[in-house]
Amino acid sequence: MIDKQALHSSIAGGVTGPQGFKAAGVTAGIKASGKPDLALVFTEKPAVAAVVTTQNSAAAAPILLSREIVQDDGPKHAVVINSGNANACTGSKGMDHAKAMVEATAQGLSVPFSSVIVNSTGIIGVPLPVETVVDGIKTAIPLLSSDAGHEAAVAIMTTDIVSKEIAVEVDLGGRFSGRKVRIGGMAKGSGMIAPNMATTIAVITTDALLSHETLQTLLSSAADKSFNQINVDGCESTNDMIVALANGASTEEELAGNGTGRAFGQTLRRAPKPILSAADPELQVFAQAFDHVCIELAKMVAVDGEGATKLIEVTVTGASDLESARVASMSVVRSDLVKSAAKGNDPNWGRIVSAIGSTSAAVSQEKMSVSIQGTPVCQGFMVCDFDEVAVSNMMNERLLSIEIDLGVGDSSAVAWGCDLTEEYVHINSDYRT
Amino acid sequence: MIDKQALHSSIAGGVTGPQGFKAAGVTAGIKASGKPDLALVFTEKPAVAAVVTTQNSAAAAPILLSREIVQDDGPKHAVVINSGNANACTGSKGMDHAKAMVEATAQGLSVPFSSVIVNSTGIIGVPLPVETVVDGIKTAIPLLSSDAGHEAAVAIMTTDIVSKEIAVEVDLGGRFSGRKVRIGGMAKGSGMIAPNMATTIAVITTDALLSHETLQTLLSSAADKSFNQINVDGCESTNDMIVALANGASTEEELAGNGTGRAFGQTLRRAPKPILSAADPELQVFAQAFDHVCIELAKMVAVDGEGATKLIEVTVTGASDLESARVASMSVVRSDLVKSAAKGNDPNWGRIVSAIGSTSAAVSQEKMSVSIQGTPVCQGFMVCDFDEVAVSNMMNERLLSIEIDLGVGDSSAVAWGCDLTEEYVHINSDYRT
Repeated sequence: MIDKQALHSSIAGGVTGPQGFKAAGVTAGIKASGKPDLALVFTEKPAVAAVVTTQNSAAAAPILLSREIVQDDGPKHAVVINSGNANACTGSKGMDHAKAMVEATAQGLSVPFSSVIVNSTGIIGVPLPVETVVDGIKTAIPLLSSDAGHEAAVAIMTTDIVSKEIAVEVDLGGRFSGRKVRIGGMAKGSGMIAPNMATTIAVITTDALLSHETLQTLLSSAADKSFNQINVDGCESTNDMIVALANGASTEEELAGNGTGRAFGQTLRRAPKPILSAADPELQVFAQAFDHVCIELAKMVAVDGEGATKLIEVTVTGASDLESARVASMSVVRSDLVKSAAKGNDPNWGRIVSAIGSTSAAVSQEKMSVSIQGTPVCQGFMVCDFDEVAVSNMMNERLLSIEIDLGVGDSSAVAWGCDLTEEYVHINSDYRT
Repeated sequence: MIDKQALHSSIAGGVTGPQGFKAAGVTAGIKASGKPDLALVFTEKPAVAAVVTTQNSAAAAPILLSREIVQDDGPKHAVVINSGNANACTGSKGMDHAKAMVEATAQGLSVPFSSVIVNSTGIIGVPLPVETVVDGIKTAIPLLSSDAGHEAAVAIMTTDIVSKEIAVEVDLGGRFSGRKVRIGGMAKGSGMIAPNMATTIAVITTDALLSHETLQTLLSSAADKSFNQINVDGCESTNDMIVALANGASTEEELAGNGTGRAFGQTLRRAPKPILSAADPELQVFAQAFDHVCIELAKMVAVDGEGATKLIEVTVTGASDLESARVASMSVVRSDLVKSAAKGNDPNWGRIVSAIGSTSAAVSQEKMSVSIQGTPVCQGFMVCDFDEVAVSNMMNERLLSIEIDLGVGDSSAVAWGCDLTEEYVHINSDYRT
């Protein structure tokens, strides 16, 4: 286990933290509120891209289009996202509108159509006001700046209370010792409001030089540990998408700098083969930082769930396999009873046990145990001797930690969610007027 | 399709509606409230029994014991259920207590240990006050009466607002024309309250003469259409159990009556083989009535969900197969967003489409459609032209009907749930004091 702390450090800038990325966030006028609703991320230097998208069979038009575009072998230059309208359940007109967004972005930036990834978030089933969106794109392009990561993060918000951004710098160590690469990211959260808001969108940028295959492997792996391990209300959206762009700009900086060493992955310029392998310690260091960025963004999404007052972190250890660990941890953060108990600071371990028991995960009747905020509350499916009032008081925090040992193996997983509050129901039951 | 209305009619009595069944419901003193908490169902005439139990790996001691007892070939005579304490997560002592309940019931009724089925519902993780329960059993036995189905139904309630009972009489028709058999049932609902209440328990009685295998087949089939198609909060309990008892008493009534004909299933007395076959129209008539009893009880459970103000009935048609129809319909009734929209009378079809899309069910992009209270709101993943205010007004009823055609096949399923209200969160978040 490599100590993460020593290997990456926080930097400013969000998606524009890595070298060579610019962003913009503007008010196109899609949202009635007049808040920013159009975000652009751009790298002049060609990048490779990877995506993870919703499995929802009602996937929105921009999702369908972006999947095609990422499959295309050509270089990638931009991501364009509007908020305020999801362009989902909008039929063939929806696809025309998604293409119009790509076209406007590509023309304005003088890059190929197939280099622009698109997504939308907001109301489902209402035609996109495409002219407004296209005008917004035209407004955003001249404002692209290497300092505007925050503006882009704000422009993809729907009912999010805070914007979600992160950037880190990684010293890869090993044969690349002293070489720095950067990873940045922004995300929007689980805001579902009248009539219906699409859920998670995240953009990850890095100036590492990676092959498409390597980036896709890194992203899929990170998504399984982060965005696929969070839950607000169990409702998979039509527009979920995580997109990663790697433009290799760190290599140029290196070469322009002391010019001595071979940059991370530089050989890929000559031979673009996947470089991810278990035997490659530098890649592992990068992957850890990449996971960290995705996990931190995912946690920001979870804690900003509608009506939420706290982040619930469920760690499952001792599972027979990884899938069991993930299923068990997700079952706990998805339980409305656990979520309600979290809201009320109720150390209700029976609901946790019941949530675990309802999954296919193997559990040792004798060895299993549950701790809440570090205090053992259940051992071998029976109550421990603990002070309920004291544990309840300990639960009155922004972070609620639940640890479960299934007692049958060595696999583990962490899932994150939020409490269920009256405010969630209030937000989601008001008839739109 | 046989017209159900013509073939069975409602009768009084709940579990004591069928011939030969007695019941009792008493206050043992398990509940602090002093409300009834001990129910007994008894048939002097030996019965066959079938059960469907929770798949939760933290299944409670009485569930484990009852599974064993039902496996035993011997006759069955009684079901004993206490409320107020689930005897779940109580270790080996919990099993001792469950056995003590069976032992006390068997001794008091002078029937074999292996003829008594047991269950408990209420708080998880707290040792059962077994002496109080055993005293309650001793109190209940002399009160057993063929009129006390209602008292038993009340005694299994936890946070249920109303008791759940039904009984029907069936004219089997065909070669058994004019012969009547009866089916009765009681259930308790999804009340989960400090710290944790186990969920569904149902007892179905019938005076039809059936083999164990036939009864199990009927019960498993009915459960898949009823109790397995309802949802309140997606939390599977440690104590869920549906038990069915068939004592064949209708045959004696027949024989004691005009004495002319062969009673339904009478041949089973000589050769106890399964009689369920597609070619047996009388069995199909009985099965329809049996399904009806289970479905009506399940709907009573759904609409009495904590904090619920209405029953949501989701009918999925046009599915590629039965499993897809069930998964899709359950996904809609489980969606917290759909449940919240139901509360607010919001005809939010996007949430319905999203819930369907998140399942593995095949959906035709062109042919799929959604109706709310009979009004088409979505066709081919696009909005229909409908009056939102009018549909919202139509949703302000105790029964909310959502119909979804997946447009790919001929299979269908119905699922029932309830709306999600602030009251649900309030009930389940209050720390027990």
